Amino acid sequence: MQNITRPLALFLLVWATSVIAEGQIPSPSHEIAYPTGWQSWSTIAVSHRTDNKTIRVILGNEVAVKAARMGNTNPWPDGAILGKVVWKDTQLDTWNAATVPGNFVHAEFMFKNSKEYVQSYGWGWARWVGLEKKAFNKGAQVCTSCHTPVKDRDWVFTDPAIFPK
Amino acid sequence: MQNITRPLALFLLVWATSVIAEGQIPSPSHEIAYPTGWQSWSTIAVSHRTDNKTIRVILGNEVAVKAARMGNTNPWPDGAILGKVVWKDTQLDTWNAATVPGNFVHAEFMFKNSKEYVQSYGWGWARWVGLEKKAFNKGAQVCTSCHTPVKDRDWVFTDPAIFPK
Repeated sequence: MQNITRPLALFLLVWATSVIAEGQIPSPSHEIAYPTGWQSWSTIAVSHRTDNKTIRVILGNEVAVKAARMGNTNPWPDGAILGKVVWKDTQLDTWNAATVPGNFVHAEFMFKNSKEYVQSYGWGWARWVGLEKKAFNKGAQVCTSCHTPVKDRDWVFTDPAIFPK
Repeated sequence: MQNITRPLALFLLVWATSVIAEGQIPSPSHEIAYPTGWQSWSTIAVSHRTDNKTIRVILGNEVAVKAARMGNTNPWPDGAILGKVVWKDTQLDTWNAATVPGNFVHAEFMFKNSKEYVQSYGWGWARWVGLEKKAFNKGAQVCTSCHTPVKDRDWVFTDPAIFPK
């Protein structure tokens, strides 16, 4: 009987853990809560990087997309959230001159609030790494040091892509 | 008086034309109506092509995005619309190893309806070119000949990117 019980218990443990992980809200990153629903946000732009071999989409919440479409981006309005979803750049089997998203790297976000985040140039900076959505907590200065080249563009690299009406 | 009237008339002509063009619904492509609202659809994937120097986002209507997230893509369900938005690949001034959307090239769409479009492999194929959204009407075979490498994948190149919940 014990021969059956132990594998069954192990199976149930794994199953229950995966169910709980699926429904779990990730821990905050730099004290910022994980933004639910970002997976269905509209697109603001895309980008491709040869230095770290990644391909990306830049999404926005409603405030950010409205601002992007109207060109109201320097500064971005309070309430705007920009999301950058990053995958490893991977050759497409069926079209060799194309690259597409491979493994998921991370999703990172900028939360505009010129009062709350005055210490970090008007933005809250957050990142969740990997499929397990591990909160990045090494400090916003890791983010802002990389974004310094665009400090005169309200700290944002992205130019909204043209979306004809 | 005539010196003032002619420039004024010219200005009004240009202005009125642009206003009319802005509100105009584009002509059908391959007898398919322009899908309004695609600019706010959710992202399914992105791609980067070195052969024609373009960068793209692949969007979907609600039926398509739901199917993509559930892996229900061979075949895609009737009612799914996939949109591919194409820009010229352009180096980013503020990060030289990155490329981003430059000039808008076209937006093209696949409309899944296994009964209506039985002659073209279950899909309606449509494209609107440039900022003027000029309807492409050279025949669906122009589209399907390029998509032949993926005929066993319901004629779709795109693998939905991973969007962790």
